[in-house]
Amino acid sequence: MVLQLTRAVILPLMVLGFTHQINAQSDSVFIRRIYDEALLRGKAYEDLRSLCKDIGARLSGSSEAAMSVRWSEQKMKEYGFDRVYLQPIMVPHWERGNPESAWITLANGSIEKLTLAALGGSVSTQGLLEGEVVMFSHLDELKQAKKSEVEGKIVFLNQAMNAAEIQTFKAYGACYPIRGNGAVEGAKLGAKAVVIRSLGLPKDDFPHTGSMRYEDSIPKIPAAALSTADADYLADVLTQDKKIRFSMELDCRLFPDEPSFNVIGELRGRKFPEQIITLGGHLDSWDQGEGAHDDGAGVIHCLEALRILKTLKYQPEHTLRVVFFMNEENGNMGGKSYAQRSKEQNEIHLAALESDRGGFTPRGFGCDGNEIVFQKFLALAPLFKPYDLHIWEQGGGGVDIGPLKDVHKGISLFGFIPDSQRYFDVHHADSDVFENVNRRELELGAASVSALIYLIDRRIFGN
Amino acid sequence: MVLQLTRAVILPLMVLGFTHQINAQSDSVFIRRIYDEALLRGKAYEDLRSLCKDIGARLSGSSEAAMSVRWSEQKMKEYGFDRVYLQPIMVPHWERGNPESAWITLANGSIEKLTLAALGGSVSTQGLLEGEVVMFSHLDELKQAKKSEVEGKIVFLNQAMNAAEIQTFKAYGACYPIRGNGAVEGAKLGAKAVVIRSLGLPKDDFPHTGSMRYEDSIPKIPAAALSTADADYLADVLTQDKKIRFSMELDCRLFPDEPSFNVIGELRGRKFPEQIITLGGHLDSWDQGEGAHDDGAGVIHCLEALRILKTLKYQPEHTLRVVFFMNEENGNMGGKSYAQRSKEQNEIHLAALESDRGGFTPRGFGCDGNEIVFQKFLALAPLFKPYDLHIWEQGGGGVDIGPLKDVHKGISLFGFIPDSQRYFDVHHADSDVFENVNRRELELGAASVSALIYLIDRRIFGN
Repeated sequence: MVLQLTRAVILPLMVLGFTHQINAQSDSVFIRRIYDEALLRGKAYEDLRSLCKDIGARLSGSSEAAMSVRWSEQKMKEYGFDRVYLQPIMVPHWERGNPESAWITLANGSIEKLTLAALGGSVSTQGLLEGEVVMFSHLDELKQAKKSEVEGKIVFLNQAMNAAEIQTFKAYGACYPIRGNGAVEGAKLGAKAVVIRSLGLPKDDFPHTGSMRYEDSIPKIPAAALSTADADYLADVLTQDKKIRFSMELDCRLFPDEPSFNVIGELRGRKFPEQIITLGGHLDSWDQGEGAHDDGAGVIHCLEALRILKTLKYQPEHTLRVVFFMNEENGNMGGKSYAQRSKEQNEIHLAALESDRGGFTPRGFGCDGNEIVFQKFLALAPLFKPYDLHIWEQGGGGVDIGPLKDVHKGISLFGFIPDSQRYFDVHHADSDVFENVNRRELELGAASVSALIYLIDRRIFGN
Repeated sequence: MVLQLTRAVILPLMVLGFTHQINAQSDSVFIRRIYDEALLRGKAYEDLRSLCKDIGARLSGSSEAAMSVRWSEQKMKEYGFDRVYLQPIMVPHWERGNPESAWITLANGSIEKLTLAALGGSVSTQGLLEGEVVMFSHLDELKQAKKSEVEGKIVFLNQAMNAAEIQTFKAYGACYPIRGNGAVEGAKLGAKAVVIRSLGLPKDDFPHTGSMRYEDSIPKIPAAALSTADADYLADVLTQDKKIRFSMELDCRLFPDEPSFNVIGELRGRKFPEQIITLGGHLDSWDQGEGAHDDGAGVIHCLEALRILKTLKYQPEHTLRVVFFMNEENGNMGGKSYAQRSKEQNEIHLAALESDRGGFTPRGFGCDGNEIVFQKFLALAPLFKPYDLHIWEQGGGGVDIGPLKDVHKGISLFGFIPDSQRYFDVHHADSDVFENVNRRELELGAASVSALIYLIDRRIFGN
């Protein structure tokens, strides 16, 4: 549910009274300084450029992921955070390999090449794999199919994201099962491979990769995504000739797990150094594009948020800890390990904020906290009115910080919400590059995250 | 002042009572159909592609402007509007010409080429123009300068848009005087030319053109804009060596006024055909780029808004009239003539809406109407909540529809407000091309305009 400013304006002011107004004044001045620093002297854009162009895609287990760990550690040290350290974890190591190709042979013998990308974690085709195609327009259709319709064939799941859904993450969520479970459902009925329509909104030539899963008891079959343009083309061809031959080759390989790291930097709390507020995104990305929006923008938001507070000489009451999580995309070992480690060390975690929805114009925040925290959260809305943030909704968090909820009862999770309309143009695709991130939008996001972290420290949990 | 949903939710529901709730239900269903049509079967993106790629930039008086008039007329006929016609007007005809170039010669004799563009309406340099440069960081500095500082020199107005200003149109407005009045102020003190820093937010290599004015009693001197990157470079060089030589050549020419047209299409009102609601943007553009956001997006928003209502078989109570205004950029003869003609013909104009802020994610609308209209306008806000429109502010309108206010007392003006963060990346520059317009953002804008026009017809002025 999206809550508007109504409650935020009236209730808390009445409850908190005059002192609140004084605080709100000094808060609004400090928040203005945060935005000024981000927009006039910001480092976010140059830092993201460096992460995307000097390193590039950063899939867990890759040498680029290792480079990005060192890059991040160095950045945090350069910005003078009180404590910078690496948290060792183990991550999966999967590689797409080469070649990766597909084509169809029409009844008249002519050949049309298609653009596809293996889904993350897919097995290899072991050389050329060929067969007839059977198309389904929804995963449920496949589940209800007879074995005789599917056995020995290549399943094509042509389920499109619903362009009429205004909240693009909902449209994504509705299609996620074809990517996550398509291979398992196809293999149950004897399919030899699964090809899905990319989870992307525009009709274009970029295949979108992403995570998929196998089950131990079910044969592991190759799985890949076609670009939306080629999915439309294939569907069109199939309406005329169901007997076309589909050929594909994936050379994916799975290696033993590898050591890697979460990268952590802290500003030490002045009053309650043992009480922690985490903010983070994920440093790893898929191996397509440069992971610019997903989630280069998110880690840079959080890095810049802390840099700004440090630059403005803000002395936090609680320890503010920025975490660049590793391996969100294919295993979430960073998020899980971080939560586990914090439990083992009996850390006190008040709150965590995640940015993992891209570097677009800020629209607001979500809050997953108890009623008192949520009311205090709503009371912050007027402070963000000059910056056009208008979404103050229940829920939030993200994949990386989610596991904290299991080990710290009562922790409040927050999620940054930028405009979502362009996210699924580039998500997990070769088009997720630095050039598709707008400087002002990125900077406004960093400022918004910085301002909320300041207010979580000072207003929601402050004394 | 930006008003939030508070008043919109509570007051009108209490005032209008139960009937309003029933209507709101059917309205919300119809608005959902509008967005579905725009997002699933929309023509906006393809129409804008055609306008930008099949025609391109459309400066008043150019053959492309003439092409675009025919293109628009044909489109409106194709969409089956009840009445499509051209309204003859006269427009200025200025051409940039060729060559257009600038460089500086450093003390050591080395030469650096700069990227510049004549401001719209500038006179030619009559061959190569050379001189010393005197820099001012604000137009007021120039106004206060002594004649001896300026005479015989080239004035460089290096006033930058304020990146810290969240509302980018305000930052633009604050710098507008250097473009509009720089040549006059420079000439008053005997300058031989004026070069301004482009009115653009990013630091890049695109000069941004735009309108400027001369005064009859003041000598007309050439005026051009440097790219922001070259403005920074020039400022940097000048701090080290004030004696550098600046060379520039502009070959601009002014021709006699030419005949052109506003292009008009109507859906006839069922109950009150003589009462008119206008919606429009401007068909002309500057001669840089393709006028994709400015204002290709705006005219396409309005075209698509009416096409959608027609496609959904909506029968408006009042006559809905889409107007593609000609010559907004350098004279506004389209807007002025339209208002004048409507006065001469004693037309009844209830309302007018303009879209001229680009094709970005919709944020809301402005309304310049009396208190009753404004309250009814605020009452519409909840209907747009599912579409994330949150700005419902006083003010609005635009350059094209502004003159209607002078001839129709009591007319209500509305302005469409998309996100403004990226607008001044491309405004009046070669980067204002179709590739920089996002399909979903454009379609959401068209749907938002269509829905508001429906509600203006049915709810604000409906019976």
